[in-house]
Order: sequence, then structure tokens, then C-alpha cells
Amino acid sequence: MKRLGTQTIQFDNPPTIVSTASIVGPKEAQGPLAKYFDQCLDDEFWGEKTWEKAESKIIKETVNMAVTKSGIAATDIDYCFAGDLLNQCISSSFGLRELNIPFFGVFGACSTFVESLCLGSVFVESGAATNVLCATSSHFCSAEKQFRFPLELGNQRPQSAQWTVTGSGAAVVSANGTGPFITAITPGKIVDMGIKDANNMGAAMAPAALDTLITHFRDTGRKPSYYDAIITGDLGYIGKEIVTELAETKGYNIKSNYNDCGVLIFDKEKQDTHSGGSGCACVGTTFSGYFFKQLQEKKLNKILLIATGALMNSMSSQQGESIPGIAHAISIEN
Amino acid sequence: MKRLGTQTIQFDNPPTIVSTASIVGPKEAQGPLAKYFDQCLDDEFWGEKTWEKAESKIIKETVNMAVTKSGIAATDIDYCFAGDLLNQCISSSFGLRELNIPFFGVFGACSTFVESLCLGSVFVESGAATNVLCATSSHFCSAEKQFRFPLELGNQRPQSAQWTVTGSGAAVVSANGTGPFITAITPGKIVDMGIKDANNMGAAMAPAALDTLITHFRDTGRKPSYYDAIITGDLGYIGKEIVTELAETKGYNIKSNYNDCGVLIFDKEKQDTHSGGSGCACVGTTFSGYFFKQLQEKKLNKILLIATGALMNSMSSQQGESIPGIAHAISIEN
Repeated sequence: MKRLGTQTIQFDNPPTIVSTASIVGPKEAQGPLAKYFDQCLDDEFWGEKTWEKAESKIIKETVNMAVTKSGIAATDIDYCFAGDLLNQCISSSFGLRELNIPFFGVFGACSTFVESLCLGSVFVESGAATNVLCATSSHFCSAEKQFRFPLELGNQRPQSAQWTVTGSGAAVVSANGTGPFITAITPGKIVDMGIKDANNMGAAMAPAALDTLITHFRDTGRKPSYYDAIITGDLGYIGKEIVTELAETKGYNIKSNYNDCGVLIFDKEKQDTHSGGSGCACVGTTFSGYFFKQLQEKKLNKILLIATGALMNSMSSQQGESIPGIAHAISIEN
Repeated sequence: MKRLGTQTIQFDNPPTIVSTASIVGPKEAQGPLAKYFDQCLDDEFWGEKTWEKAESKIIKETVNMAVTKSGIAATDIDYCFAGDLLNQCISSSFGLRELNIPFFGVFGACSTFVESLCLGSVFVESGAATNVLCATSSHFCSAEKQFRFPLELGNQRPQSAQWTVTGSGAAVVSANGTGPFITAITPGKIVDMGIKDANNMGAAMAPAALDTLITHFRDTGRKPSYYDAIITGDLGYIGKEIVTELAETKGYNIKSNYNDCGVLIFDKEKQDTHSGGSGCACVGTTFSGYFFKQLQEKKLNKILLIATGALMNSMSSQQGESIPGIAHAISIEN
């Protein structure tokens, strides 16, 4: 592999994303991407007693599905990289505790999926692993309960709020395969512009997305037009608009080929999701369900996937802290 | 690098741990390792308004100290790997948000320090990075508040309970240097033997430590006598005894060269810490403060460092779940 510029790593023998899997909740099943997901659940519990246990089951079954689809024996998967939004990442730990694969817990808030893919692809490219598994999950109910208010209160949500995606996305990355390939990664820095509104995560994370986007272009010498699609994770409508405008002020016009998973996954008018989707599973399921298939079918051949995370908790907001953002990018190409 | 057995990676050009730094709280300052730490704080707040902000300050200053000691410009450090015990790892995110180094958030509970070193050393050995920073923190007060009871209640603690170390450990790992070298890593699997007592973490994590220990020996063909010291992270007195006994039943006698950071960091009789120290900073500070200096002074030349983590949160216990454990090992040699 080769280091480009300040933050980017370009792979000489790019790892292949062999398979992906996605399971989503009932709200996502009513959204515009429903047909692309492997499984849509009828309710938020999936037979479990708590939302947390349901989330664990979702990531567990998604990972099993990704492994089965890959055609690679689970015993041939060397390492697993996974994390989620729940305190101490219990969805991943409990969901994957029977997996019997060496496990790296990862926390990048909603950037976790791409963070896992960054780490996993370095392991594969370097020969530290032949096959790795990357996964994440989130759940609307467990996230609302933990980060905001008890759902039973029925609190009103401001128009800038986003809707945490219920679901899980998983990918098997291998040294052997014919693509789509992870050709480069641009891991991001923590960027904190002082935004404190936990109901406006898109605005809080947008500066980090912009920083990683511009760094990726600067490091690689590429222009936005290099990519068929530039996709952020869960900036939603507000964050997407901020990034589009700020990128233009920096000399990068991304209007024609840029979109955000939080914008794509729900129907804003019909689904009452305000600024769009969010959560680790927003980019996890949208990539694993929709974009991966577009790449496989060669409808898209070069995409830049930038997952964004807000590195805060409910207590940090109560203590008056602002919201640090982070964004990790990977180039995926046929 | 070369894969050995099922889980181990051996490095051909082993990365050097160039520098470490450690800052601890007032209780650790009264313990037997006090003189090895770079800085001992007088109180748990260090001028901050909350324990969480104090913990962020501790990791921030520890990282700055490790970078200064390394003689490497912060701008030449390619990636940072860090995490902690607080919900959504806010100690690391907030403490390191001004670092301006691409950031990988890591969550392995109390195994985080060695997990970071595993990831960082693969990045360095593979050429993905020349220099990386690995760090973690924990804080007795923020951990008690989050995982157990408000400190103000003055709850009694059972004899099996451990005392979360207040402090931070950080290390700079580089492709260039004359050792101590990270020569191999054995990342661990999640192991859950059904233990549910959150006041007996040592017993919950011991099976994971044993699994990684035996796997390391099996993968490398080494015997316990290969190492001058085998060190676990925070099993404490109870977990240490379990691992010692179980290892013997598996044919590995580690009685003469095995110890645990949770046993070493406090004086059991004088400090009322029951089963010993715990927390991410237990192995973080004990390695960065004590063992790294022993390696530098050639008093020890080969150590196996196994950090252990309990992958639960307070809610998972309330929901009747058992405590999954994990342990990651690294060989450090002169």
C-alpha cells in the first residue's frame, strides 16, 4: 500500500467486498429503498423482550447472512471489526459473542461502518488477514431511549432532528475476489466547530465530512467528477446542504453526483422523518443494501463513501459540551 | 508480516514503542507503583468541573506527554487509536479532539489499550503508517457513577469488586526505532462463560484471558518460560488465581512469571481495593509507567501483555445478560 498526502492510503492489491447483507426495521421497510434490503422486519422487537436484545439479534443475523452469501466458511474469516451506538457497544458484543472470530470493537458513532471497512481493508491488504468481517447496527427505539427521551413520552421532534435507522449492515472483505474493490481509504480527524444542538446532528457532522472530502481530493489529486457517486452517511437534508455549499466555496462542485444515505433511506414527505435518517445502520444498510448492488450491477463503478459520526453522549450535552464530528472515507471501484 | 496458527500475527519488521506516558489519580499515587508514573494528580477533578471533563484532560495531557517524549512531531504521527469506558468513548473524543491527527475510535472495554496497540502495530508494520499513537483512560469516579452507584451513596463494595484506576496510558509506536519491539499480536475472541456478577469482573474476564493466552502459545509454539513476564490487564486477585489454575489444567505452568496489573497497582492491605485495580487505565498506566521502563532498562526483555475487557454495560446486567469477556495479547521484546 502507499500513503498519499496526509491521510489517505491507496491499496496496491485492493481488497474485494465479497458480500454484504442488510436487515432493517418496519419503518425502513416502508421507505424508498425497501426492495434492496435482504430482510425487512415486521416490528421493532423481532421476538425479543427488549430493543437492545432485538438490536443484538439484528446484527447477529445480518452478519450470519453476509458470511453465508460470501461463500467463505466462518472459520476462514480471520477478524471481525464491529461497533454500534449503544453504551459500551453492547449490540455488537452480545450479538457477535457466539461468532468465534477474533474481534476488534470499534467506535466511531455513525461512522463505525466505514471505520470498520478502513481497518479491515488495511488488515487484508497487508496480509494480516485474508478475510475480514465488518459490521454495525443501530435501532431507533434503543437510540431514542438512550440519547433523547423515553419513547413513551411522545416528545415532539424539531425539524432538524433525524430518525435513527433500525437495522444492520455487514460486509465480508477478502484478499481474493473480482471486486468491487476498496481502492483507497481516507480516515478522518475529529472536527468540532462548536455546534451544541443534539437535535441538529447533520450540522454538527457536516464540517467533519467536508474536511475528509477535501482531504481525500487533495491527497489523491482527484476531482469530484472522478466518482459516479459521492455518498455521505447520515448528514440528512440539513447536513447535505451545508456540505454541498461549503464544498463549492472550497472549489469543489459536488452538486451533480453527491447524495446522503439519510436523505435516500426515508421518504421525507410521507414518513415524517424531518431531516432524514441517521445512526450507524443508515450508511450500513444503505450501502450494503442499495449501493453495493449498484456496484455489482455496474450501474455505478466508482463511489466515494464517507460515513459521518457525532462523538458525543447525552451527558456531554448536559455538561454544556459541543459535538465533535468525524468522517471516514473509502473509495470503492469496479 | 506472517500469520501464525489461527489468531496470531508475527511481524517481520517489528514496530518500536518509542515512548509511553502515564498520568494517574491520587489513589494510584499512594500505591506501590507511584514512582514509575510521569505525573500523579492531587485530586480527582484536576481543576475541571466534572469527572468526565477531568478524564478527558487526563488523556489529553498524557497523549501530549507521550508525543513530546517520542521526539516525533505531532504532525508526523499518522493515526491515533484510542478509546475508553465512558458511554460513546467521550473521554477520548473530547480529550483528543484538538489533536488534529486522523482518529480511529476503539472500544474493547479494559482491553482497549492493547487493542489499540494491535491495530496500530499492524498499520505501522504494513506501511499504512510510519508513526501511530495509542491511548486509553479510565476514572474511578466517572466509572462508578456510570456503571454502579452514585459515589455519594457510599455503597459497600463486595470483596470481589475491583477499583477502577484513574489515569491514562499512551504510547507512540513507530517503524523507526531500536525497541522495545512489538513482535507479535494475538487478538482475542469474545468469550462468555455465563458469569453475571458485575461485581466480579475478574472471574468474568478470566476465561477470555485464558483463551487468548493458550491460543498465543499454540499459535507461536512458545511455552510460558519464553517470557520474562506474562502480564494480564485487570483480572485482579480473583481472576489472576482463576487463570493461573486453569492454565495449569491445560498444561501451562505460569506460576513463576505471571502477574496482573490490577494486582500490582494497589496495595491490597493498605488501600482497601479488594480484588485489585481495573479499568482501561489499569493496564494502560501500569504498562506505560512500570513495564515499559523495565523493558527499556533491560530488566525485562520479553513480555506478553494481555489486556482483558468486560463487554457489558449497566443495562445489559439489568436485562439479565451475562458478561462477555475479551482479551488481546501482544509480545513486546528487546
